[in-house]
Amino acid sequence: GEEITIPNYLLTRLEQLGVKHMFGVPGDFNLRFLDYVEDFPTIEWVGNCNELNAAYAADGYARVNEHSVGVVTTTFGVGELSAINGIAGAFSEMVPVLHITGVPSTDQQAHKSLLHHTLGDGRFDAYRKAAEQFTIAQADITSKVTAAAQIDRILTDLITYVRPVYLTMPTNMVDQKISSAPLSTPLSRRAQSNDPSVEKFVLDEIAKLAKAAQSESEKDGIVILVDACAIRHHVRDEVKELCEKTGFPVYAAPMGKTAVSEEYERYGGIYIGSVTAPEIKEKIENAKLILSIGSLKSDFNTGNFTYSIPVNNTVELHSEYTQVQYATFPNIGMKNLLPKLSNILLSYRSLAIQVPVPPYKIAVPTESNETITHTWFWPRVGKFFKPKDIVIAETGTSSFGLLDTPLPKESVFVSQILFGSIGWATGSTLGAAIAGRDLGLGRTILFTGDGSIQLTVQEISTMMRLGLKPIIFVINNEGYTIERCIHGKNRKYNDIANWHWTSLLKFFSDDPSGKLSNSYTVTNKAELSKLLDDPAFASTEKIQLVEVMMHKFDAPRALKVTTGFNESLEN
Amino acid sequence: GEEITIPNYLLTRLEQLGVKHMFGVPGDFNLRFLDYVEDFPTIEWVGNCNELNAAYAADGYARVNEHSVGVVTTTFGVGELSAINGIAGAFSEMVPVLHITGVPSTDQQAHKSLLHHTLGDGRFDAYRKAAEQFTIAQADITSKVTAAAQIDRILTDLITYVRPVYLTMPTNMVDQKISSAPLSTPLSRRAQSNDPSVEKFVLDEIAKLAKAAQSESEKDGIVILVDACAIRHHVRDEVKELCEKTGFPVYAAPMGKTAVSEEYERYGGIYIGSVTAPEIKEKIENAKLILSIGSLKSDFNTGNFTYSIPVNNTVELHSEYTQVQYATFPNIGMKNLLPKLSNILLSYRSLAIQVPVPPYKIAVPTESNETITHTWFWPRVGKFFKPKDIVIAETGTSSFGLLDTPLPKESVFVSQILFGSIGWATGSTLGAAIAGRDLGLGRTILFTGDGSIQLTVQEISTMMRLGLKPIIFVINNEGYTIERCIHGKNRKYNDIANWHWTSLLKFFSDDPSGKLSNSYTVTNKAELSKLLDDPAFASTEKIQLVEVMMHKFDAPRALKVTTGFNESLEN
Ligand SMILES: Cc1ncc(C[n+]2csc(CCOP(=O)(O)OP(=O)(O)O)c2C)c(N)n1
Ligand SMILES: Cc1ncc(C[n+]2csc(CCOP(=O)(O)OP(=O)(O)O)c2C)c(N)n1
Ligand SMILES: [Mg+2]
Ligand SMILES: [Mg+2]
Repeated sequence: GEEITIPNYLLTRLEQLGVKHMFGVPGDFNLRFLDYVEDFPTIEWVGNCNELNAAYAADGYARVNEHSVGVVTTTFGVGELSAINGIAGAFSEMVPVLHITGVPSTDQQAHKSLLHHTLGDGRFDAYRKAAEQFTIAQADITSKVTAAAQIDRILTDLITYVRPVYLTMPTNMVDQKISSAPLSTPLSRRAQSNDPSVEKFVLDEIAKLAKAAQSESEKDGIVILVDACAIRHHVRDEVKELCEKTGFPVYAAPMGKTAVSEEYERYGGIYIGSVTAPEIKEKIENAKLILSIGSLKSDFNTGNFTYSIPVNNTVELHSEYTQVQYATFPNIGMKNLLPKLSNILLSYRSLAIQVPVPPYKIAVPTESNETITHTWFWPRVGKFFKPKDIVIAETGTSSFGLLDTPLPKESVFVSQILFGSIGWATGSTLGAAIAGRDLGLGRTILFTGDGSIQLTVQEISTMMRLGLKPIIFVINNEGYTIERCIHGKNRKYNDIANWHWTSLLKFFSDDPSGKLSNSYTVTNKAELSKLLDDPAFASTEKIQLVEVMMHKFDAPRALKVTTGFNESLEN
Repeated sequence: GEEITIPNYLLTRLEQLGVKHMFGVPGDFNLRFLDYVEDFPTIEWVGNCNELNAAYAADGYARVNEHSVGVVTTTFGVGELSAINGIAGAFSEMVPVLHITGVPSTDQQAHKSLLHHTLGDGRFDAYRKAAEQFTIAQADITSKVTAAAQIDRILTDLITYVRPVYLTMPTNMVDQKISSAPLSTPLSRRAQSNDPSVEKFVLDEIAKLAKAAQSESEKDGIVILVDACAIRHHVRDEVKELCEKTGFPVYAAPMGKTAVSEEYERYGGIYIGSVTAPEIKEKIENAKLILSIGSLKSDFNTGNFTYSIPVNNTVELHSEYTQVQYATFPNIGMKNLLPKLSNILLSYRSLAIQVPVPPYKIAVPTESNETITHTWFWPRVGKFFKPKDIVIAETGTSSFGLLDTPLPKESVFVSQILFGSIGWATGSTLGAAIAGRDLGLGRTILFTGDGSIQLTVQEISTMMRLGLKPIIFVINNEGYTIERCIHGKNRKYNDIANWHWTSLLKFFSDDPSGKLSNSYTVTNKAELSKLLDDPAFASTEKIQLVEVMMHKFDAPRALKVTTGFNESLEN
């Protein structure tokens, strides 16, 4: 067959997977590889300010470009380690990110040369050992003979297990040529087939439970609860079908938010254990059967482990197993199970739809003063969202506030509730905005805190360099409010430097005149409402930053309930 | 004995080691620990913008506060992994940094709770396994009974091996009390004693070589070459004594720069193999005996492995072994050997000092045009330095330029030549400036590139919050010039966003009026000279930033020689 360089082989595979952008930072061990990237027609190199931000961007890109993957390229040691927290986050949250790192030549490695970026002690495997903790597969390109197979193997793992993989590219392998023949067979997820007899058994069991759960007198005995893995393992469509065919009310855990449209007429809102709004909580916890899809029961995703759903009433569908009450069925995966389940539960629809599901809407409260409170802010902002918006929530008051804010149909909610690394949201916004542009989605809107944005702020300059136009809301509440809720309310360690937020966009784009961007400070309700109602603002013709002044002890409902924080704003 | 909480035990140990500042970022798993830090009278908490910067700051602090250690505290997972590249750098460059991380309670760990900041799969040892790659000792505080011994063990390793150590502090251990009795015995380096008979043998061997190397007709047959480990393993005083007692000319490798005063009358300059200035190169390579102290032969420290010093003519003194020609003597360490060596070589002085050592000075060249070139810039800046200045060099043109710039006596040169992680210098400057203030040193002066500063720029806001007043020179040469020299001269991946540099200090300190800082752009020689000659500028009453405009293809001599780059500035 035709010969192709190893980088072009890899890039062609990525192209086949729908990758249009690659993130990272150059370094002398990856420069020759980047020549191929820069010259590759369909993949654009996005140079980031630093590697952690690049990894976060690749993660955000993969979250929005949902059936594709994110890619980050770094240099040996210094670069890859700088990115590792972003990779670990993608592992934790099940986001498919390929981490490519340019490394010394196989000769230099074999001779343990005392190169720059090494640990100085000849250990050339230390970085890889660290990477092994946070990736599900690794490959070192060390020979022409195995290069294609290595690449195909880790990319298949990447799309199958939707968790990061790690690839090292030694400098002396970059220009080597290999056969392009395998490229004519596109990669696909490793097939997962449910054993038919076990699957039938499982379906029968579920059918029995359903029968016992719904009746003429208990028409809302069955509910669906959708969570993170429904999104990550690509069963949105199957879940939609299940909802529509059965008419069961559907709720989402925080990490499953927007897996089902929040405007869907039988969508009931967010379930977070004891933190759930009472009307919603009751509906779920009183159900006789909960069909839980792709659940991920982490502390913040479950109101600190306060689910009040008996195992006896639960069927859990996962990517690689099914749990019916107390019984686990390994290798019965939801991708194949769901369509069959939809069909066997069809008949429940007629009764189910007789019980209306109260629409998931939150009214903007009337408050007597002009201060911007969390209670008022989130519903107010909720009215600003439009279909297809990408809404990104940083860990902190933002993430808890947005949980309780209904989003329009086709919008995408992006947050990192399990891993919760602050600074992630800013980097992720870059990737999300790029993917959104590629896919023709709507506006990209970031909500972050004055503390969190400081970790990765420089990446906003990359957004401007690429002509992206997100809206960035920065909640200025004098520091780490979420931490004040948890511990150290008045401690100095929860204070931060105040920046001159409205100069940020001008500074990072070398735009002293401020023509390329708009920045605003809003200190009261009227100012914010006026801004949100301004069509010029809403149309995002420029990148925009809004500094929202809030009280340092104010917090959204869900955060107060989770942490037991209840301070008067006057303290 | 009296009872004391575990954090106070640790903090008292750190106080005994001379620690006055701790760096880091809070997180819910370390907040209660930070209560003790904030309340501890002699150690000040420095909250950083992010964890990587905090680790870099701890590294810079340890480099300048030379007989103490740096400390960085992070939170579980997200925080510690964000810092890991800074810890790896400290490992590589032998800088003693204690990394404390607040982790979930021992119970939560045992139950593998699905907590935020975990990988979601119950692996509570993954972060520690990563840390093991980059620290020489680890301790988990899991019981009152062993806590003191664990702390003492890793701190002793820290000061003995001057490489990072890792300590996890579970939330449930923080308030526990232990005996303070061990605190009355201060920690010290593990004793290293040279076996007297082996040591005598080694000294005799060296004496023989010395005798053969120096003679009436070859008075400059013996030279001293000092390198990184002379600084890291604290033998500056012993080296000074050797130099003074023997009168041998002394040179430094890049990483040993300022180990011996560059104003010392028998100091001859920097040796970097084939990259060395010819006059200096010849002196060293023609010597019959080179007494090499604490050498670290990494690529950039040796002009890409181009030492031209026969092993036959070399004696290498290291912290834990000695090498005489081809023979290695394990466990003969330089700390004890050096004073004896000085005494046996006393008699060589009278001949040695008859050969003058040309002073290590570099004249400012006269150039016909006004462009700021590297050839002109570094000598010109050299005239600006004063004794006790702390000079920090970022990897890039800055680091190569400063190598060739003589520094005044008692100045401290800080750079990361082996690990070479860009962004390090900005974070390190924070720690260096704090240590400099604690120790009553002079100005802190950072030289960085427009590319490198982007990785960690936010930490400048911490400098301002603490009232530090470094001078920050940013070389604006439109991107990654050092990489253009290596590969991809005109590649887009070597371009970066241009920022509005002179707004940086105003933005990060919320100081739109610019009263707290001064910022300058210099575009030609006259402007720069005027600024450097301005006493107000030199006195650093405010924090200052100088944007220095340079050509994107210009590079210092040493960088051009190392990379073989030689482009006309007109291209
Ligand atoms: C990388 C990382 N470092 C530290 C933390 C601990 N942490 C969680 S939230 C938070 C404060 C966030 O403050 P801010 O962004 O201002 O949010 P808000 O004040 O709105 O709560 C911190 C420090 C973390 N989650 N991730
Ligand atoms: C963390 C990290 N990422 C990437 C690199 C690769 N690298 C080495 S030098 C350099 C460019 C530095 O550019 P700049 O600071 O502008 O210096 P100058 O233009 O003066 O050479 C890069 C990207 C690195 N050394 N460390
Ligand atoms: Mg805040
Ligand atoms: Mg530059």
